[in-house]
Amino acid sequence: MEEKEISQAVVARLPRYFRYLGELRDQGVERISSGELSVLMGVTASQIRQDFNNFGGFGQQGYGYNVDYLYHEIGHILGLDEEHQLVIIGAGNLGQALANYVNFEKRGFLVKGVFDVNEELVGRQLRGLEIMHIDRLESFMKEHKIDIAVLTVPKDGAIETAKRLADCGVKAILNFAHVDLNVPEGVQVENVHLSDSLMKLSYNIHRYENGHGS
Amino acid sequence: MEEKEISQAVVARLPRYFRYLGELRDQGVERISSGELSVLMGVTASQIRQDFNNFGGFGQQGYGYNVDYLYHEIGHILGLDEEHQLVIIGAGNLGQALANYVNFEKRGFLVKGVFDVNEELVGRQLRGLEIMHIDRLESFMKEHKIDIAVLTVPKDGAIETAKRLADCGVKAILNFAHVDLNVPEGVQVENVHLSDSLMKLSYNIHRYENGHGS
Repeated sequence: MEEKEISQAVVARLPRYFRYLGELRDQGVERISSGELSVLMGVTASQIRQDFNNFGGFGQQGYGYNVDYLYHEIGHILGLDEEHQLVIIGAGNLGQALANYVNFEKRGFLVKGVFDVNEELVGRQLRGLEIMHIDRLESFMKEHKIDIAVLTVPKDGAIETAKRLADCGVKAILNFAHVDLNVPEGVQVENVHLSDSLMKLSYNIHRYENGHGS
Repeated sequence: MEEKEISQAVVARLPRYFRYLGELRDQGVERISSGELSVLMGVTASQIRQDFNNFGGFGQQGYGYNVDYLYHEIGHILGLDEEHQLVIIGAGNLGQALANYVNFEKRGFLVKGVFDVNEELVGRQLRGLEIMHIDRLESFMKEHKIDIAVLTVPKDGAIETAKRLADCGVKAILNFAHVDLNVPEGVQVENVHLSDSLMKLSYNIHRYENGHGS
């Protein structure tokens, strides 16, 4: 399929479509119209059609989309028909939580190595993996085909670690450190700034209360 | 200060401004121009001025913004000069990671209670808090002024739990469950769908490789 340049706003919505279609599929739903999907997902039908038109429209006909076909097409666009190999840098609470996160594996994101600087953590088992010292990062990356690094180190070490990962040829970083990374072009970064999310909630609580009096 | 209706895109950028200004302030920087801030943050100066104009512009003069003033103003807009009281629902790995996340407390987000259904976890200590059975949620919420609930339960229980939280008068939910919640108007929701972030990375890896050949 020919693909034109897609905006990141559209890309950001694809996983949500994928999730809803997966659920419909699990429920045995075979076809769905953009109108029905619109009600389910709380977005306009025209938004859905516009988004899908970026990828050729997925053959909507009078009676709607084929759920299974659409699910697989979007999965394919997202690159989910290939496995991705992950390392987690930082085996603290968050790193451990992510290593144990079953949803990742279910989507084909396989954790292959976990690293930390803390000697007390190094050598411990985490879901069948032995936590390695970060000194071993470069040699490990040479021996394994790692796509994605999940970065859960403190802010101070994050930029340096991201640079090391980029030098090792990592293609993407999921960054939980509370700092913006500075990586070469071609290394994809997604930030999960949890404090930012709380601040946004704080703003919206405040706005709502002021907007609605009391 | 008079505030007009601000788009969520602007709101989403405020925490990042706040973060950068906090760092400049810690470094002893007193004034900064929109041009300098633009280089630092990798956004255009006109974007910055536009964003700030939503809040009256913060008195930029020839020689730039007063960093400390701007930091506090944005903090005020974000509601960070008031403390927020949190509960965490789900004391698994992720819930434990979040309960231990010091950045939350530093920003005035205080974890006051942690709940789980798992009898093995109930009664254990987590950062000075005893993990409570979810049965105690309603009575706890009556006795405490809780603003925000952090939801780290599995997908299947999430919608029901969100409803209970809304019934208890929670104002906002930070949702890590891999499902969209359905809450009454006035309950603010921020979703952190970690699998979605990985899927977006997967897409961008794939796009970059196809766009740049090999």
